[in-house]
Amino acid sequence: MAGDVRCVARAISVVENGGAGRREVVRLLHPSSGRAHIVGVTGPPGVGKSTLVDGMIAHYRASGHRVGAVAVDPTSPFTGGAILGDRIRMVGHSTDAGVFVRSMGSRGSLGGLASATADVVTVLDAAGFDVVIVETVGAGQAEVDIVTASHTTVVVEVPGLGDDVQVLKAGVMEIGDVFAVNKADMPDADRLVVQIESVLRLKGSGGWVPPVVKTIGHDRASLVGLMDAISRHRAHGGGAVLMERRRGMAGHRIRLALEERLLEAALERAGPSRFERAVESVVAGESDPYSAVDDILGEMP
Amino acid sequence: MAGDVRCVARAISVVENGGAGRREVVRLLHPSSGRAHIVGVTGPPGVGKSTLVDGMIAHYRASGHRVGAVAVDPTSPFTGGAILGDRIRMVGHSTDAGVFVRSMGSRGSLGGLASATADVVTVLDAAGFDVVIVETVGAGQAEVDIVTASHTTVVVEVPGLGDDVQVLKAGVMEIGDVFAVNKADMPDADRLVVQIESVLRLKGSGGWVPPVVKTIGHDRASLVGLMDAISRHRAHGGGAVLMERRRGMAGHRIRLALEERLLEAALERAGPSRFERAVESVVAGESDPYSAVDDILGEMP
Repeated sequence: MAGDVRCVARAISVVENGGAGRREVVRLLHPSSGRAHIVGVTGPPGVGKSTLVDGMIAHYRASGHRVGAVAVDPTSPFTGGAILGDRIRMVGHSTDAGVFVRSMGSRGSLGGLASATADVVTVLDAAGFDVVIVETVGAGQAEVDIVTASHTTVVVEVPGLGDDVQVLKAGVMEIGDVFAVNKADMPDADRLVVQIESVLRLKGSGGWVPPVVKTIGHDRASLVGLMDAISRHRAHGGGAVLMERRRGMAGHRIRLALEERLLEAALERAGPSRFERAVESVVAGESDPYSAVDDILGEMP
Repeated sequence: MAGDVRCVARAISVVENGGAGRREVVRLLHPSSGRAHIVGVTGPPGVGKSTLVDGMIAHYRASGHRVGAVAVDPTSPFTGGAILGDRIRMVGHSTDAGVFVRSMGSRGSLGGLASATADVVTVLDAAGFDVVIVETVGAGQAEVDIVTASHTTVVVEVPGLGDDVQVLKAGVMEIGDVFAVNKADMPDADRLVVQIESVLRLKGSGGWVPPVVKTIGHDRASLVGLMDAISRHRAHGGGAVLMERRRGMAGHRIRLALEERLLEAALERAGPSRFERAVESVVAGESDPYSAVDDILGEMP
């Protein structure tokens, strides 16, 4: 909780290893968490998210904030900060104890990545980091999941990548609290801003209207508008938006933890050979997945 | 089961609406399924997956096979074939009763998309489609999930997109049964083929060695190598690889169905107000997600 880097790294390893140790770490640290602002950054590959996150870290550091960053990549089997990306990115911040960067890969179960990420954020939050940035490789499930893991979600787009249909995709438009049009020195940046704004207007939400800001990843001065938009979202409605997001996140984590525990207990009670029999009967076409589950549950005392 | 398009569409709608109707459809149709070859196609946005899938459909049709195709996009809220992409793509096949194309979006729960896709595949399989192609927007969770939903997974890459680190990403390398280097008329296609092959060699798997084939999406003659690689994977080891994949898929579906049923039952027994209390205590820092779950389960009779 004093933010010692080695302790934080060790706590994260315990969380990633899962099981009882993970639950114990979260039990101990959760009461000390809840102060960090959790910022999600998502968008398709190639839009320059990592450079943008590096710039955001620099801005937060310049205003005296300690920053944790978690890069989530379900297709990477690596964890523990050992991947190339971390090493490259740490160069700028490696001598700075106010920055902690970590990569999360697909170690362990798939469903587990979302809840493992939330637990790692809890560790960083409890360790006193004022801001925790969660960066995910977008274009798919990860893009949708990030909403359940952050207070403010930044969706990053770039001009010229993909067609208009892609940009106007309603699913992505719905998850953004702030939209960053990155590589804004490219042609058509203004056109993309207008396009996104017009789609957002159609939504006609009563409360927060997501701002669309232009950024140039490697030009840190260009990030002022983005940083300001994130702060404004945090404070919006006297913190009411933030509180609503906190409730949603807590509900999601409880649901994930419940699911994990129930499945674990049911598989243990049924036993591996019972599960294998169910698999064989489904493969053979003698049963289907739902009937197999009925049978397994029906046999339980 | 006779493959009537309207009946198939209606069965899929019932599956997408979830609940008891969905389970009933799968119960009825599962015994008639198990004959289709399920081919997953994944890769980052912009690699030309849709054009490639169109070409694959044409090849299968030319050899007399009926083909179902499911496009999975977790960021799209649309379902039911109403999205623009479907309309564009159906043009080439719309008068052909041997082809059925469907889009799946993020309607319903997030965890539900993987199992809903598997159930839609069951409908198409039971309706007598010889091949069912499942196309997902890659780069993230969806890329990993597709393995649990297909017999043969095709990973599509293109030269010049992203850096080498991206290409060599171990997580993606592990899921491919066949690699397609698309847009192979671009420079550096051969270099990318060699890169992928050298990474695959490092893995040194004893059984199936994933072939790397070059394709040009809009040039259908160029897909012969891809079609051949898919057939060879299907037949490899006298079908042993396929049977192993079937078992893995069945196990995954049983686990998903079990999880869904257990969570549903537990939330119903606990009641919404008990769940709300748990959320508030976690938000207030009086409890953590794991202890809240302990409390909820401990109170159950």
